[in-house]
Amino acid sequence: MENFEFYNPTKILFGKDTEKKIGKILAKDDIERVLFLYGKSSIKETGLYDKVVRALKEEDIEYIEHRGVKPNPVLSHTREGIEKAKRYNVDAILAVGGGSVIDEGKTIAVGAKTDKDIWDFFRREKEIKKALPIYVILTVAATGSEMNGYAVITNEDTNEKLSISSPHIYPRVSILNPELTFTVPPRYQAYAAVDVIAHVIEYYFTGQHCPNLQNRFIEGIIKTVMDTTNSILRDQRDYNARAEFMWTATLALNGLSQVGIKGGEFPNHMIAHALGALYDIPHGACLSIVIPAWMKWYKDKNSHQFRRFAEKIFNLSDEEGGIKAIKAWFSEIGAPVNLKEVGIEEGEIEKIATNAHNIATVWKMDKTYTKEVLTEILKNAKD
Amino acid sequence: MENFEFYNPTKILFGKDTEKKIGKILAKDDIERVLFLYGKSSIKETGLYDKVVRALKEEDIEYIEHRGVKPNPVLSHTREGIEKAKRYNVDAILAVGGGSVIDEGKTIAVGAKTDKDIWDFFRREKEIKKALPIYVILTVAATGSEMNGYAVITNEDTNEKLSISSPHIYPRVSILNPELTFTVPPRYQAYAAVDVIAHVIEYYFTGQHCPNLQNRFIEGIIKTVMDTTNSILRDQRDYNARAEFMWTATLALNGLSQVGIKGGEFPNHMIAHALGALYDIPHGACLSIVIPAWMKWYKDKNSHQFRRFAEKIFNLSDEEGGIKAIKAWFSEIGAPVNLKEVGIEEGEIEKIATNAHNIATVWKMDKTYTKEVLTEILKNAKD
Repeated sequence: MENFEFYNPTKILFGKDTEKKIGKILAKDDIERVLFLYGKSSIKETGLYDKVVRALKEEDIEYIEHRGVKPNPVLSHTREGIEKAKRYNVDAILAVGGGSVIDEGKTIAVGAKTDKDIWDFFRREKEIKKALPIYVILTVAATGSEMNGYAVITNEDTNEKLSISSPHIYPRVSILNPELTFTVPPRYQAYAAVDVIAHVIEYYFTGQHCPNLQNRFIEGIIKTVMDTTNSILRDQRDYNARAEFMWTATLALNGLSQVGIKGGEFPNHMIAHALGALYDIPHGACLSIVIPAWMKWYKDKNSHQFRRFAEKIFNLSDEEGGIKAIKAWFSEIGAPVNLKEVGIEEGEIEKIATNAHNIATVWKMDKTYTKEVLTEILKNAKD
Repeated sequence: MENFEFYNPTKILFGKDTEKKIGKILAKDDIERVLFLYGKSSIKETGLYDKVVRALKEEDIEYIEHRGVKPNPVLSHTREGIEKAKRYNVDAILAVGGGSVIDEGKTIAVGAKTDKDIWDFFRREKEIKKALPIYVILTVAATGSEMNGYAVITNEDTNEKLSISSPHIYPRVSILNPELTFTVPPRYQAYAAVDVIAHVIEYYFTGQHCPNLQNRFIEGIIKTVMDTTNSILRDQRDYNARAEFMWTATLALNGLSQVGIKGGEFPNHMIAHALGALYDIPHGACLSIVIPAWMKWYKDKNSHQFRRFAEKIFNLSDEEGGIKAIKAWFSEIGAPVNLKEVGIEEGEIEKIATNAHNIATVWKMDKTYTKEVLTEILKNAKD
């Protein structure tokens, strides 16, 4: 088992009606003015917007709205948020939405406390020293951003999709009411399921040694994602399934699944980010395309673990069977499993490989993931 | 899935040589003077004492020693520690040892910041409002106290073994170097294994509904405890086994295994505390006596979960078989499984039941755990 540090100070409030507490939570922390981020209009349609505003007003908390966060949040809109946060001198960020809203909120939290260009932090040229406190009301369970120190933003000018990582951007409090996810449509539930599985299998497969507890924890997460997603696709309002899926998604990327594993990497996310930067395909859909292709390329490098995966998740004895089974399940729940399904021709592969190689360079993974290797993996995904 | 709050701000430093960082960690937090707690002489024999002192001196951190913490830490020694902490006006507690040293350290941290009688907090008559910051170097993996907000103390005058629970007593930083546990003797490793299993099975069996992710997480913990303990008993210096066991013990009682489970209770600990208060038997040994006896009494109240336990842990199909198998494994690793083995006669049962009933009253579990019920359970444990 490798040496590690684990620190996760986010407080989770989980369950029905918890979103009503947001005003009191902010007031208790002496927050007087927040930048209130959300996406398009869905939180207005569901009534959540009104509930949040009421809770803020009851405690006399001022809010500056920053709406229109995109599903793959973009740098230009983030910069506008940073401007607003500075101009109105807000005390905190309130992100109401899914991973995109939270990630943009985290980035604004950093940008509001620095005069440096925010993109320098994503290029890993500057180190994050502080950030505004971040509060979250989660409406889509998938990315785990509600309980971690990561954020991903797309720079539309350069087609770069990059990430930051810092202990300063853990949300202070995250409110998780499973009922708020009842309106996540089946297609997006499928993408979310793929995303959660992706978060735990990266280290599981790429680590040089995965301790048994971690193997068991990760396999428990994968099986729970599959069971609960199947239930949710049958009944969108299945509270227990929504709740278990929500907490599973949080645990999948809050640091626990990765600790103690030697030398793990995030190659599937790297390639999926390249796809997402170029085509604005939902993140989970990028992953369902990339994962089976990457597994095919990688399996001989860790055949023991691929056999374990086949056995523990699908009760199958060979590694090839496990890869086919997870690909089949992705298809079954409605996630695309090749580039053709999302309308990308083989001729585009070089461009995607070049973009992925750029991320590989920033992430210091370019020795393994050369342009040739990336091309080979992407060709596995062509149809 | 039940509503819950989860908050665990303890920072973990895990791995080889991490104890050497204690001076720098304290200095970074502006700690100038600590109360340095430890047990008997074992940390001097292993050289850990010298390492800690060197690390403190390098950063000019003053330390007031408070040695002689007992395996079941007692109130009188704790009161002396509170006096010292106040007299020398320490900034923080440094607990170097196992769960006993940490628990006494936490209690002193509370006592140092109040003029109220410390035992009132254990009787749940007063609420903990603040505490000194607590730093830990762990030398025995078992209780999970290094990453939770609980502490257990025995009042020798009244024979009461009671606990406190507060967000203020989470250690700020806990240092976990598996090598420091190489000297834990086989018998105590066995007790530790029982303790960790006890921490996860209480809610697993007594909860009205245990979500699947929790079931899987808990079963992963139990299996890992059994595998790693078997390895450690074969080779005391098996680093990977010690490391996995150590982290598993921490995760077993850091809040994760209990969240979302409806109506869970801690009856085995309650009865084991009564035994520990009266006879000064190691906590894990009390539990290995109580658990099979309690299971026999309880199994029909949740036969579904007992069948699951038998199947998932031992590949057996009936609940009775699961109980026999865990009892056999406790025996195999050298933990006592009945009162006779520790020299307690049947005539003592009434006294133990009375003591357990006192704890049941404090814990508000006395409706289910009447003196008659407690007597019945203890009779299952007689030989």
